Amino acid sequence: MHRILIIGGSDAGISAALRAREIDPAAEVTIALADDFPNFSICGLPYFISGETPDWRTLAHRTEFPGLEILRGHTATSIDPTAKTVTLKAAATNAERLLSYDRLIVATGATPIRPELPGAMLQGVFLLHTMADSFAVQEHLTDHSVKTAVIVGAGYIGLEMADALTKRGIKVTLLSRTATVLPTVDPSFGQLVSECLQRHGVTVLTSTSASRIESTVAGPNTLSVVDSGGGRHAADLVLLAVGVRPVSDLAHAAGAQRGVHGALVVTRQMRTNLPDVFAAGDCVETYHRLLNKSVYISLGTIAHKQGRVAGENAVGGARTFAGAFGTQSLKVFDLAIARTGLLDAEARDAGLDPLTIEAEMFDHKAYIPGAKRMHVRLTAERGRGRLLGAQIVGDSRSEISKRVDVVAAALYQGACVEDLNDMDLSYTPPFSSPWDPLQMAAQAWTREG
Amino acid sequence: MHRILIIGGSDAGISAALRAREIDPAAEVTIALADDFPNFSICGLPYFISGETPDWRTLAHRTEFPGLEILRGHTATSIDPTAKTVTLKAAATNAERLLSYDRLIVATGATPIRPELPGAMLQGVFLLHTMADSFAVQEHLTDHSVKTAVIVGAGYIGLEMADALTKRGIKVTLLSRTATVLPTVDPSFGQLVSECLQRHGVTVLTSTSASRIESTVAGPNTLSVVDSGGGRHAADLVLLAVGVRPVSDLAHAAGAQRGVHGALVVTRQMRTNLPDVFAAGDCVETYHRLLNKSVYISLGTIAHKQGRVAGENAVGGARTFAGAFGTQSLKVFDLAIARTGLLDAEARDAGLDPLTIEAEMFDHKAYIPGAKRMHVRLTAERGRGRLLGAQIVGDSRSEISKRVDVVAAALYQGACVEDLNDMDLSYTPPFSSPWDPLQMAAQAWTREG
Repeated sequence: MHRILIIGGSDAGISAALRAREIDPAAEVTIALADDFPNFSICGLPYFISGETPDWRTLAHRTEFPGLEILRGHTATSIDPTAKTVTLKAAATNAERLLSYDRLIVATGATPIRPELPGAMLQGVFLLHTMADSFAVQEHLTDHSVKTAVIVGAGYIGLEMADALTKRGIKVTLLSRTATVLPTVDPSFGQLVSECLQRHGVTVLTSTSASRIESTVAGPNTLSVVDSGGGRHAADLVLLAVGVRPVSDLAHAAGAQRGVHGALVVTRQMRTNLPDVFAAGDCVETYHRLLNKSVYISLGTIAHKQGRVAGENAVGGARTFAGAFGTQSLKVFDLAIARTGLLDAEARDAGLDPLTIEAEMFDHKAYIPGAKRMHVRLTAERGRGRLLGAQIVGDSRSEISKRVDVVAAALYQGACVEDLNDMDLSYTPPFSSPWDPLQMAAQAWTREG
Repeated sequence: MHRILIIGGSDAGISAALRAREIDPAAEVTIALADDFPNFSICGLPYFISGETPDWRTLAHRTEFPGLEILRGHTATSIDPTAKTVTLKAAATNAERLLSYDRLIVATGATPIRPELPGAMLQGVFLLHTMADSFAVQEHLTDHSVKTAVIVGAGYIGLEMADALTKRGIKVTLLSRTATVLPTVDPSFGQLVSECLQRHGVTVLTSTSASRIESTVAGPNTLSVVDSGGGRHAADLVLLAVGVRPVSDLAHAAGAQRGVHGALVVTRQMRTNLPDVFAAGDCVETYHRLLNKSVYISLGTIAHKQGRVAGENAVGGARTFAGAFGTQSLKVFDLAIARTGLLDAEARDAGLDPLTIEAEMFDHKAYIPGAKRMHVRLTAERGRGRLLGAQIVGDSRSEISKRVDVVAAALYQGACVEDLNDMDLSYTPPFSSPWDPLQMAAQAWTREG
């Protein structure tokens, strides 16, 4: 019988627990989590803020876990890998208790980076990563007359929140440190996203960061953000969304190695260097299947997969994490943006010789009402045409995200551009063309490549 | 310099011509087609009938082909493979002419089967395969007060036409020879499609065929269909949609071998047994990549791919047709249906040992408004779990068709269920879940498999 202790109750921790019990129904599985919200979808927070998801309780698709012991409000303060014990502190009582384990799974996640910025701790300035964060934002929106907001950071959370706050009737200014928004796609596509934001009333300032935040009037809720160019932006709410860092101090203090970006080093079996200590999710390095090395990516999809591997191996399995391609999709207003694999610049940085083409086509037969233009960027190795990545931007109803997934499936097995062209993909006039847009892009690549 | 003659101006013929010229801009390429409509999307005919595509001219996305000689209204009457000539007869003048070729590409397509049924030739009884067919149906709908229609056949054209005629305000009765509609999916999914049709007012009669068609009154447009159970169905229009057969007589008369379903036998280079005679599209057998043998499938996607291979090889290339999986999608009212690979019964017939699971889940996170239930059937080989096929039915906005294409991409490279589970697919709450529904289905399969 296995006693499995899991620190963390988000995607990786819950997936690990469920898989461990699935493989070994006799396993004793305990999950200790710092807050009261196991299995909540933090990807859903922008939709709770926007009002699209009015009841936060629905952000967890299940809250009962028969057979699992869930210790809410318990923060792990130390791990003793020799004694195989973890010290937990209960938030409610400050009482400490010692739990022993046969196998430990560290799934402590990530924490948002609070930029070292004068005024970053002022009232009305928020991060958004936990349920508590979202309650604080929601309370601020409810209690104060918020008319303007500044979002610092134009990654996916910044963009989703620009959408969410605009839906709440708030005038949003978005500061993007890079030359376009959403640096996880190439600049020409970042430009398309930026145009969409502006079409919906968001003020987008690129190549601009925040220098300081000031409280401008006596009332606590009127702030002013001074940007790197000296511009001033009044705001009743400021959201800092400049990225996350792994929560790895606890395991590191116990002797676990850290690697890229301070994340825990793990094998593809999700083992740390400590005996019987596994780790998964946003607190660990992630094996990139195309680069054949570890990178840092913080995404729920990957956390779930790694958690599942860790859970299986913790009860004696021998599962290997297949690896990630950084596949990601995003909806901003009526726009869908998705990517998988490497951007052109990322491929060059990795020492590869990429060729990227950009093509524009209809999502389905133009003679069917509602056909929308979509934009595809396809990246492959010059010469033999090994696929390296794809990015697609288009209408949210154009099956953009699953089109990128077709490329993700192709990448998984090392396919070439010609393979993509030759695949037997589906067609009916309301959904595609006899050559899917992906295949038109493949043909455009072949003409240039 | 190559003189390429292509018989047929639909998907395979046009793809072949364009590819030949792309590879060899000096090639002399002539296309002879029997009607006046090169490159028209016959998949679009139901949308022209429904009124969604009001102008039939838009069914061709291009009508000018610089550098190609297009002989409209020219039927090929014989091929002399020794002299390397083709006799063409002009419809307008009945004049014959002889064209010589270096390479010939036969792309004569398919023709709809007219069941040998008393009354099948009555006025008001239609087939739907050519532009001329669609004009005839359209004229009948315009000139007569069509209130009721009977559709014989519940394959994809029958279903699309049930949708189209219902949209025109016509009460439709659909006769399905099989126990459910759409035998290209498993019966439980055929049942879902049937329920959708009935929800939209279509009368569906299963395990029922037509015995005869009668003209019931003096007026030419009121018909009665007597079904195999003796039931009578009044109709102002009858559509016969019971499948197609390859048009292979011309090439066969010249010595080309026929195989499955009477289709021309071709190599994977799209060569017939006649020297310098290629063939592609609905008139040929199709290599099935999973079965590793030839089958008969009549689909535009495959015709385009085969035509492209034939066109390339006709100018000296050495391209191989990658093969088909019978991937297909369909929209009926607000329902999307898609499949790839083998049905459970097809896999058993092929001597495999399949296990098929059926799962139901939301298309994306249920906390986002608009989440819809989708149904997935996943088929794989018992034991090692090699993927054999997938079928999905759900809302037309649930990215059903491209989800099936993810499986088509996986099948292309011989993936297993675990591979599908391990692929790095995209997620954002409005489009999917951290485990895509396909991956939830993969996990359901693994639990049973």
